[in-house]
Amino acid sequence: MNIAALEKIALSVRALSIDAIQKANSGHPGLPLGAAELGAILYGELLRHDPADPHWPDRDRFVLSAGHGSMFLYSLLHLAGYPDMSLEDIKTFRQPGSRAAGHPEYGLAGGIEATSGPLGQGVAMATGLAVAETMLAARFNTAARTIVDHYTYALVGDGCLQEGVSAEAGSFAGHQGLGKLIVFYDSNRITIDGSTDLAFTEDVAKRYEAYGWQVLRGSMYDFEEISRLVSQAKGEAKKPSLIILGSIIGKGAPNKQNTAGAHGAPLGAGEAAAAKQALGIPGDFYIAPEALDYFAARRAVWKKNRETWLAEFEAWSKENPEKRKDWDAFHSGRALPAALPVFAVGDKVATRNAGNRALGALAAANGNLTGGSADLTGPNGAALPPDVGVYSAADRAGRYIHFGIREFAMAAVCNGIQLHGGLRAFCATFLAFADYLRPALRLSALMKQPVIYVLTHDSIFVGEDGPTHQPVEHLASLRVIPNVRLLRPADAEETAEAWAMAMDRRDGPTVLALSRQELTVFPKEDPEWKNTIRTGAYIVKKPGGKPDLVIIATGSEVGLALEAAAMTAGKQVQVVSMPSRELFEAQPAAIQERIIPPGVRVICCEAGVRSGWERWAQPADILSIDRFGESGPAGRVAEALGFTAGALAAIISR
Amino acid sequence: MNIAALEKIALSVRALSIDAIQKANSGHPGLPLGAAELGAILYGELLRHDPADPHWPDRDRFVLSAGHGSMFLYSLLHLAGYPDMSLEDIKTFRQPGSRAAGHPEYGLAGGIEATSGPLGQGVAMATGLAVAETMLAARFNTAARTIVDHYTYALVGDGCLQEGVSAEAGSFAGHQGLGKLIVFYDSNRITIDGSTDLAFTEDVAKRYEAYGWQVLRGSMYDFEEISRLVSQAKGEAKKPSLIILGSIIGKGAPNKQNTAGAHGAPLGAGEAAAAKQALGIPGDFYIAPEALDYFAARRAVWKKNRETWLAEFEAWSKENPEKRKDWDAFHSGRALPAALPVFAVGDKVATRNAGNRALGALAAANGNLTGGSADLTGPNGAALPPDVGVYSAADRAGRYIHFGIREFAMAAVCNGIQLHGGLRAFCATFLAFADYLRPALRLSALMKQPVIYVLTHDSIFVGEDGPTHQPVEHLASLRVIPNVRLLRPADAEETAEAWAMAMDRRDGPTVLALSRQELTVFPKEDPEWKNTIRTGAYIVKKPGGKPDLVIIATGSEVGLALEAAAMTAGKQVQVVSMPSRELFEAQPAAIQERIIPPGVRVICCEAGVRSGWERWAQPADILSIDRFGESGPAGRVAEALGFTAGALAAIISR
Repeated sequence: MNIAALEKIALSVRALSIDAIQKANSGHPGLPLGAAELGAILYGELLRHDPADPHWPDRDRFVLSAGHGSMFLYSLLHLAGYPDMSLEDIKTFRQPGSRAAGHPEYGLAGGIEATSGPLGQGVAMATGLAVAETMLAARFNTAARTIVDHYTYALVGDGCLQEGVSAEAGSFAGHQGLGKLIVFYDSNRITIDGSTDLAFTEDVAKRYEAYGWQVLRGSMYDFEEISRLVSQAKGEAKKPSLIILGSIIGKGAPNKQNTAGAHGAPLGAGEAAAAKQALGIPGDFYIAPEALDYFAARRAVWKKNRETWLAEFEAWSKENPEKRKDWDAFHSGRALPAALPVFAVGDKVATRNAGNRALGALAAANGNLTGGSADLTGPNGAALPPDVGVYSAADRAGRYIHFGIREFAMAAVCNGIQLHGGLRAFCATFLAFADYLRPALRLSALMKQPVIYVLTHDSIFVGEDGPTHQPVEHLASLRVIPNVRLLRPADAEETAEAWAMAMDRRDGPTVLALSRQELTVFPKEDPEWKNTIRTGAYIVKKPGGKPDLVIIATGSEVGLALEAAAMTAGKQVQVVSMPSRELFEAQPAAIQERIIPPGVRVICCEAGVRSGWERWAQPADILSIDRFGESGPAGRVAEALGFTAGALAAIISR
Repeated sequence: MNIAALEKIALSVRALSIDAIQKANSGHPGLPLGAAELGAILYGELLRHDPADPHWPDRDRFVLSAGHGSMFLYSLLHLAGYPDMSLEDIKTFRQPGSRAAGHPEYGLAGGIEATSGPLGQGVAMATGLAVAETMLAARFNTAARTIVDHYTYALVGDGCLQEGVSAEAGSFAGHQGLGKLIVFYDSNRITIDGSTDLAFTEDVAKRYEAYGWQVLRGSMYDFEEISRLVSQAKGEAKKPSLIILGSIIGKGAPNKQNTAGAHGAPLGAGEAAAAKQALGIPGDFYIAPEALDYFAARRAVWKKNRETWLAEFEAWSKENPEKRKDWDAFHSGRALPAALPVFAVGDKVATRNAGNRALGALAAANGNLTGGSADLTGPNGAALPPDVGVYSAADRAGRYIHFGIREFAMAAVCNGIQLHGGLRAFCATFLAFADYLRPALRLSALMKQPVIYVLTHDSIFVGEDGPTHQPVEHLASLRVIPNVRLLRPADAEETAEAWAMAMDRRDGPTVLALSRQELTVFPKEDPEWKNTIRTGAYIVKKPGGKPDLVIIATGSEVGLALEAAAMTAGKQVQVVSMPSRELFEAQPAAIQERIIPPGVRVICCEAGVRSGWERWAQPADILSIDRFGESGPAGRVAEALGFTAGALAAIISR
């Protein structure tokens, strides 16, 4: 270990961070200055990576969970030689078009393994990355050859550790014994409000020990010690490790270091100059030549390491052609078609149960489909077929994950599994508890990750559990998140197609909103409905003549609409099932008008709030539920809320 | 302690629970059967309460955090003699109109201290109840007389303890040294999916010790031990206590106890009969006479206790007339008017900062206004005036709360503070992180609690922090929650009124969406605007003649609309500020039409997704942001997204 060089790397991280933040007049110097030494040894010595191929499947992963410290990451990516992170990007830190965005954004540059900034989620995603590694290792490594064998590192601050999602993920990671997850805790005891003594005086080490982690301590500024601690972490194969590094926020800024003033605002011209003078930084955007030389030499080593792996991979491929075929399929990002379950008109099936059958078929066809539920395996219809094992420390090839009652971490872990590459992730809970995992769903959408969210018990038809468990605003609230695709199938047949659509999607998450109650499979007059549904809507029932009105319904309300239409004489009623309003609204007018003829009266019906349906119908022509529900048998609740076929028929007749 | 009687109470809890759940054919027998003994001693011996006055301010609070076990609570309320919980209610468990709803619902019956069911939130609300007790005790107790002196109990299961929100609240409670918070953990090691070994193997006791709690252990079925442990808990004044009680889920059901089958479904006729036989329950909805006799005797004691308190309270009132005046004001639920800050047209003030001044004025006038931020005190403008202290173990009279980076627990704790009575609670974070606290906001709305949510940095005009920190869907997503009132004031003057409106509201939460950036105070042509704004909208600028079009804008976009209107010649443009769309949409047509004349073209402008605005304008007439933002200076981000006065002017001119 070339400590002199590492010191120069740390110096360069500080130099780039001070100047980039100062130039942007925006940013968070506290972490990059405080943790520069860790960055130096991490990118210089510890990480098994190769900037020449940032997507090398067996690279170590590093997640900057404390994403506000983004200049830490950008500086190191640039110094290490990641081609995506140019000095120009760093000089345009926090400007539109720069890869050096305010917080690390997945997809902007190689080496950014996850979008971080919403605190606590980074380390939960790192947990998912570590899960993925164990799963792929179990599936692909052979007695003779090890193809998957890497570590997942994360850097957290006090903020991440206060968030509940990191607690959930920590307990999960400890339970699962994720020995290759190594988390550094930048313990500087300062947050925005001031000292952590204001709000955070727990014994973090003891808490992580309680989760079943190995906890180690050291100084942020002792390279030998960090190296030794990481070896110790790697030596413990059965437990994740938390390495607590005592540090000084904003280290190097003579007047602001060790204060909240260093956290989230530029140092200011005077303090920046003072810091640079104190540190011996000779110019602007300074990079020490020793740091460049060091990394140039390292790149040769990294290249060799990766080539060794590639040779091993080729040899493994020859020896294991079937595994290689799976590997390619897993990493293609494309789902393989499955023998979806077939239902008959008149079948009464809850869409959660139809969904379970579709999931089973897709899991059989796609060996990389993995996921589970937040302790609602049965109620969500989330179980995988019995021959697919349960993921655990004892069976890393198992694909069903018991996430525990931890909705938020579940979704964040799924983001991590998905980000790893090679796997497709799904997770499940009640739709009403989408609120618990919403921040992670937003990140799925922002990162364009096709995680599948199975959210069942999708309306007041949940019944007796009452308003806490009856979603009313949730469909609307999920539709408004950009890039989330919500599908609310209306019967078992639509559910199978919806699952297939979710699997086919590659650029963002899909929410499947499924019913608790049985729904009757209805005849579909559009012979092409399995294609048309991919536009978001199709015609279920055409009237004999030109329609007087169109009813748009989703999910269980399509059945209600058919019932109401049958109750109404003298009007030509067209019934449209619209499992995805967003998808339909994204279609060209010609496609929309084939389903909803322009100028025809439209009635909308959905067991949830009306917001968003006003685009299609007049307020009086929307049958919705704009209040919290009630506890009682579903039919009686619907009566109490005036949400019945009779009420819809009355609107039609008006 | 009459153990024979307590056993009969436990028997009666089991009897009522088995039959109520069986009759409803829905419910969760596992907890009431498993924890009946705790219920017996809690309601019979431990709780200082009086069913004759469920709202007695100095009663002990009990929150059933594991709300699915609702029959536990209902049985005990009925047995103890709470008049709101009749046998008829229990016999109509989970039917519309019954006070015995699926999950405990605040407001349905005295003795239900919080709506619970969404796991983990109950114990976080209990933390808030305990905070409120310490605050009121510090404010009102005198050397001579103790008026506020009660405990807060909660019952949690494995589910609550896996949720991140309970972890956040646990760390907060330990930090704050809430010695009068006593949490029972019904440790039955079974959840819906089966054994907790599937997902939850951490050392809970050690974790709570790490938080700074006292942790005690015992058996659910040993009255003497529970009594001793509670004494021990009470003996530790500086730490909250977790009492871990080993238990058997569904105890008494001979074939289902100790299995997941007992958790969440009726026992079934056969098992119910077998359980009743095994337990010696002679009939349906059986109540042991000894239980009734016992409680009848207890009620006399409780009445005396409460009368003693009342006498003390009267004596204290005479000795402390000023304190008594405050007490009455605090408990009235009504906010006192304040000298709101005054701004002048042309002032440039970020609404977060204007909000801080209004908050300061309101906090000066209302000594019961308390709250804080999730570590964003400065950025949110959440600080209270310097003479208002910081709440801590050392200063219970402090009113500013450092919640730590724990948005979800912050909101749940505020729910608890508000539920306690006597205080008004507010909390603050970035609007983008409303997602983190959303499940608690939903409970504020469902429980009709007027918690005030100060959510700043309310649009892409946040700028450099980028898409993770730029809300785009959040305004829409909050508006759809029933009973949430969202106010997005357009300048400093509106902000002061918005704060006053939030304080005046008594039946639900208010969200104040405030800007990071400076906004210019604009002239308001409606002379009555301070009244009209209470309808949700008012006219900022009237055209000379009959309007050709109306622009509806909210928040910072009102300034943009004024700018665009000024850029447009030849059209009579009316500009409307609509800080609360929900409030406006709830007005009678006559009021709406005074502001938006029927038949006139309407343009809507808001820096967020368009969903919901379609009610007022054609899709082409909505200037919105329907994608994630960008990192960059606010103005450049707005340019990049096409969200400018010029773009709005182009729509106007069309």
